[in-house]
Amino acid sequence: MTTQQLHEQILQKKSFLCVGLDPDLSKIPPHLLATEDPIFEFNKAIIDATHDLAVGYKPNTAFFEAYGIKGWITLQKTIEYINQNFPEIFTIADAKRGDIGNTSSMYAKAFFEDLNFDSVTVAPYMGKDSVEPFLAFENKFTIMLALTSNEGAFDFQTLITNGKELYKQVLETSKTWKNSQNLMYVVGATKAEYFAEIRKIVPDSFLLVPGIGAQGGSLSEVCKYGMNDKVGLLVNSARAIIYASKGTDFADRAREEALLVQKEMEGILNSKFQV
Amino acid sequence: MTTQQLHEQILQKKSFLCVGLDPDLSKIPPHLLATEDPIFEFNKAIIDATHDLAVGYKPNTAFFEAYGIKGWITLQKTIEYINQNFPEIFTIADAKRGDIGNTSSMYAKAFFEDLNFDSVTVAPYMGKDSVEPFLAFENKFTIMLALTSNEGAFDFQTLITNGKELYKQVLETSKTWKNSQNLMYVVGATKAEYFAEIRKIVPDSFLLVPGIGAQGGSLSEVCKYGMNDKVGLLVNSARAIIYASKGTDFADRAREEALLVQKEMEGILNSKFQV
Repeated sequence: MTTQQLHEQILQKKSFLCVGLDPDLSKIPPHLLATEDPIFEFNKAIIDATHDLAVGYKPNTAFFEAYGIKGWITLQKTIEYINQNFPEIFTIADAKRGDIGNTSSMYAKAFFEDLNFDSVTVAPYMGKDSVEPFLAFENKFTIMLALTSNEGAFDFQTLITNGKELYKQVLETSKTWKNSQNLMYVVGATKAEYFAEIRKIVPDSFLLVPGIGAQGGSLSEVCKYGMNDKVGLLVNSARAIIYASKGTDFADRAREEALLVQKEMEGILNSKFQV
Repeated sequence: MTTQQLHEQILQKKSFLCVGLDPDLSKIPPHLLATEDPIFEFNKAIIDATHDLAVGYKPNTAFFEAYGIKGWITLQKTIEYINQNFPEIFTIADAKRGDIGNTSSMYAKAFFEDLNFDSVTVAPYMGKDSVEPFLAFENKFTIMLALTSNEGAFDFQTLITNGKELYKQVLETSKTWKNSQNLMYVVGATKAEYFAEIRKIVPDSFLLVPGIGAQGGSLSEVCKYGMNDKVGLLVNSARAIIYASKGTDFADRAREEALLVQKEMEGILNSKFQV
């Protein structure tokens, strides 16, 4: 997928919602537990109920790996289901990978080739040669952690180095890497006031924004400071949508929650772009 | 496993060698490709040939994930093979994970419970709440990246913040986290002169040291500056051992290479501890 295609999908659906798939056997509706692959059934129902309201899905690999081989099979079935049925959807493997060069190449193969995701999240700590192997894939995107939505973000990401916060240095340095046009960044919604500063460094990049909903971030604040003239935002919501109900109505309730977010996004897009 | 048990194994085997399992279908002996699970056969042969010379094995998860479901099955077979046949061995899932708290909990379950590794490597960028879920597991170890062996280590890890390099800040901050006694750290062998400084901050912690062999680090230099009175080092070698030969003699050649390292370690231990 290209960013142009992603942008067109956003304008068409009037949505820049990404639905996070963090499926936990202890949280999904109990009636699904009798099926052969409860997590796949759950994901499939959520996807079927929300695909016209969302432009992306973000399976969180931890929630699959926790179930071992069975979990990895479910992850593969989930991404195949999306790719086969909704090829317009932008898919994100939320994996937070990153290692020395030859290892990162293997991770890139795992997510871009074997599983055929459009993008993968990576951590920046190991620097240039840990990220560039991902960037070498054409029309695939590497979404690097910049400023995350959790409390621990303030442990290291906001430390001052070279006169600026580390996450700003990470953004600036990453722009010098080969194929940096394939970078997107994770910026947490819980820190909306930071978006203005971030946009000075990466005006054109897509930002993946977790932290709306369960983590407490405000959509309108994020858009006020973070939106660019190509929208440039993918706002993720997981728990608030996928766990809206534990009953047999869970998919309908997920759709209702997704629709609320999409409608708010539509309003913002209409006011900003007169679409 | 406890650190005391690991220490006893080191003294008994006169070795603090960890063998990295980075199995790549394009690099393993071609005669194995005809078997049902070439990578498992490769790992098993390497483990059988070196288990008395090594105290740890470190499967690199990227090299399994790159083969999808089949790779994850191989990873599970490999860890089960070690745990069942060589329960004294310290096992490391080299996975470089780390995410917000509820996600890190799932990764911890994946590696500590489902796969039953003794330890897992994690990245520090997301801070305290991304690492503490791993630390909550008793007699399991969380090996956090401090100063890595690659070129990109100098992109962010050595930036000065609060008057010291970021990796030193990472070490210091991590000592304040809950159950920090379950932390070990990754420190690359290619930067031996840094070990003296690191030992001032974490005198008692085990350090996992990649970068010996293919990456060019010196064992004697690492030991000179990095060894503490409980040894406190696990030195990893992967490519130099596991790819010593592409012929049918690969396991014998791997043993020869491992023996060279073990003998050098034995000399160092004898001179330092009169064991």
